[in-house]
Amino acid sequence: MLTPYRKLTKRAKEIALVASASELLSWDLETYLPPKGVAFRADQLAHLSGHTHRLFTAKNVGDWISACEQSGFPADSDEAANVRQWRRIYDRATKLPTSLVEKFQRVQTHAREAWRQARQLSDFSRFKPHLAKLIDLNRRMADCWGFQESPYDALMDGHEPGARASQVRALFVELRPAIASILGPALERSARIPRDFLLGNYPIPAQQALNREVATAIGFDFDAGRIDTTTHPFCSTMGPADCRLTTRYNERDFTQSFFGILHEAGHGLYEQGLRAEHYGTPVGSAASLGIHESQSRLWENHVGRSPAFWAHWHPAVSRHFPELKRCSPEQVAAAVNRVAPSFIRVEADQVTYDLHIILRFEIELKLIEGQLAVADIPACWNEEFEKMAGLKVTKDSDGCLQDIHWSSGTLGYFPTYTLGNLNAAQLMHRAALDQPALESELARGQYGNLLSWLREKVHSRGQKWLPQELMQSATGEPTRSHYHVEYLRRKFAG
Amino acid sequence: MLTPYRKLTKRAKEIALVASASELLSWDLETYLPPKGVAFRADQLAHLSGHTHRLFTAKNVGDWISACEQSGFPADSDEAANVRQWRRIYDRATKLPTSLVEKFQRVQTHAREAWRQARQLSDFSRFKPHLAKLIDLNRRMADCWGFQESPYDALMDGHEPGARASQVRALFVELRPAIASILGPALERSARIPRDFLLGNYPIPAQQALNREVATAIGFDFDAGRIDTTTHPFCSTMGPADCRLTTRYNERDFTQSFFGILHEAGHGLYEQGLRAEHYGTPVGSAASLGIHESQSRLWENHVGRSPAFWAHWHPAVSRHFPELKRCSPEQVAAAVNRVAPSFIRVEADQVTYDLHIILRFEIELKLIEGQLAVADIPACWNEEFEKMAGLKVTKDSDGCLQDIHWSSGTLGYFPTYTLGNLNAAQLMHRAALDQPALESELARGQYGNLLSWLREKVHSRGQKWLPQELMQSATGEPTRSHYHVEYLRRKFAG
Repeated sequence: MLTPYRKLTKRAKEIALVASASELLSWDLETYLPPKGVAFRADQLAHLSGHTHRLFTAKNVGDWISACEQSGFPADSDEAANVRQWRRIYDRATKLPTSLVEKFQRVQTHAREAWRQARQLSDFSRFKPHLAKLIDLNRRMADCWGFQESPYDALMDGHEPGARASQVRALFVELRPAIASILGPALERSARIPRDFLLGNYPIPAQQALNREVATAIGFDFDAGRIDTTTHPFCSTMGPADCRLTTRYNERDFTQSFFGILHEAGHGLYEQGLRAEHYGTPVGSAASLGIHESQSRLWENHVGRSPAFWAHWHPAVSRHFPELKRCSPEQVAAAVNRVAPSFIRVEADQVTYDLHIILRFEIELKLIEGQLAVADIPACWNEEFEKMAGLKVTKDSDGCLQDIHWSSGTLGYFPTYTLGNLNAAQLMHRAALDQPALESELARGQYGNLLSWLREKVHSRGQKWLPQELMQSATGEPTRSHYHVEYLRRKFAG
Repeated sequence: MLTPYRKLTKRAKEIALVASASELLSWDLETYLPPKGVAFRADQLAHLSGHTHRLFTAKNVGDWISACEQSGFPADSDEAANVRQWRRIYDRATKLPTSLVEKFQRVQTHAREAWRQARQLSDFSRFKPHLAKLIDLNRRMADCWGFQESPYDALMDGHEPGARASQVRALFVELRPAIASILGPALERSARIPRDFLLGNYPIPAQQALNREVATAIGFDFDAGRIDTTTHPFCSTMGPADCRLTTRYNERDFTQSFFGILHEAGHGLYEQGLRAEHYGTPVGSAASLGIHESQSRLWENHVGRSPAFWAHWHPAVSRHFPELKRCSPEQVAAAVNRVAPSFIRVEADQVTYDLHIILRFEIELKLIEGQLAVADIPACWNEEFEKMAGLKVTKDSDGCLQDIHWSSGTLGYFPTYTLGNLNAAQLMHRAALDQPALESELARGQYGNLLSWLREKVHSRGQKWLPQELMQSATGEPTRSHYHVEYLRRKFAG
């Protein structure tokens, strides 16, 4: 007879076998699936996700979790951590009535289609009724899940376990004026480097070879991973030793795929650093989106967009792209750090990026707490955006219709991007304290000790603790805005 | 309440959703999986195949089949055909005791590894004990499944439903001397064209572009399929509109990938011609291996290796490979039809190919019927091969160790390759009678009417009938050796 804990582990590993097959089906959908295969692929994915959902939400799973909660695992053991997380996700999965889940899925399907049309036509009115329904359903789901302070907490909890709107707001309230104070000097500096300074001719095979070289250098294991091409870049894991990155190529601008791969490889290093023997259980899974994003931003920005990085990599990059020999390493570093307010979040520079997130967070919070009507989103967005970024939104496709998230009914997700930025800066600050040689190692293109530090402090922990406990353990503090602000100030206004 | 037939259809479609996910996992294993991902991929595949096996062999499935057998579907209806086939495969799947299936899988795993080593070292003694066990297990499985004449019939039935060793032997007894009589003149002609006549420099991108052009021309739908690169070429279907071909490239010899793709696209056209609305049920599935192989051989050999084909395609092919301009279309056609006995089946020409199969069939039959000891295989093989092909086998890696089939415990499979050749010639003969313009259409590179004929007579039928009933319906006769022999004689000794 297996103990309840063994039964849960066995079930979790069984679910992981099926869920990872779904990952491959999804990856293939974005990479290689012939166009006529899409409809059947949707059926396959729906079937397998229904199957894993039933495997996890079965009544006996709840009984096993209850039994484990009585079995006195030491609080700091892997077992206790797994049981805590299974309880969290079991409750989230079972507290929603089936009728609500089904309704949400139906509304979501129509909303996504309506959003696509609305964005194309830049006509918010087409999306408005769908979004109103999704907001209402999100509020009802939050009520089912329960919360202490704000229904928004219940929504964030699905992406960032334990996060509270009040804490996020406190961080953002510090962040916004700090960024404003950095933006002026940053713009002044950026004026010195032309906007299209690096544009040229960068053949895709050369970009691919360089990207692979850099990803290998920072530690991504290509025997347990690969890179493919997709419209929207992502990182996807379909087994304990199978992590796949994707990117897109622009022959005029190598930086898109280059920083895309550094970003996705940052996610990939996290996935490859999880403990393989715990694959499929919480302690073998990433802690949260805000921790995941800290890893991608750390490698993309703190490592990849630093002057030291370009001082070291300039010769190698010039071997792949001879025309870059005309630029000095300092010029390349300046060009890839150019700051300029823009409408589109995914194109934003490091300084203005978080302003986009703060705007979205404030609007989401008001929507969920009933202080803003869906009809008033465009006006509110445009007014706030102009205050923040000094740009007048003239069409909603450049404003509140630009992101896919709301059309999927996903709220409470955006803040994790900025949490990722804050966590990245805080982790880098701590890593430099723990490893006095770090700066000089990075300047020599040696990334092994930084990766080892992240492996130990972050990757190998999985969901052993909640994200804020993990940050406390790794850096001695919960997430603060201070380190990110100081990093931006040094880099862009120092 | 669903009728038993609706329940079976629902279950079959559910199984197809999971089985087609397994197809993708297998395809990915051969195409893109990072090396360290192999072990987990094996776990995924084993789990999903166990899942589909349980879904199909459940007791209620047997009850539903029995109920359907009483429900009086007209014998020529899709429903009756599905019920007949479900009965066949349900009985095959449930008649084996679990202990035997598990033992077979264990022995198979070790045997495959032993075979790899044995082949590498050309040392049959390393493979011998494993093969002996597999032969014994095959005999026991045949006893469980039951048979009327020979235990070999029960084994063939898994690949070629309804086939009998006695019928195959009768075909092969006619075939062998006929081939012998064609081989002499064929060799004489081939002596006129040098062995390496077409070797040159054929860049892979040009091969890929040409292959795609030709596959499109014969009707393969790339919106519902694709081509990737693997060590061993195959055709794999993972949905009603998702059929994937693979090939390998040799930069010195474009004919490998070219005829490889014509062959696999022949399989693919069959898959793309099945009735999509019946996907996952027998009438929406290919009839047998011998019918499947008839489609690949028809497009590869009867179409692709004909002088008319090269007369038409020579200009297009020369656009991709300028150096082919030095050859006339007739010279290319002669070169790709060069006949020369050789040791390796997969490299054999059209004339000697079937000799390889006849040899294997005779040996398998004797093994299963207990007239040949495993230890005597090499001696028997080498003696017979020299009689047939006039070549002395000096190492078993060129002889009885060359194929993977036995190491997987697969017997009764080889004859389907030659059945494919016979069926291809018979179908082409009939198509030409039904469509008097066929020859001139093919000479103009017009393949639509041939494909339509195959769609109607073969593809769309699925498993509506047994393979021999299908041949009877399409050509007016069961499979005969006559048409293949006459085709070879005309082409190689005419």
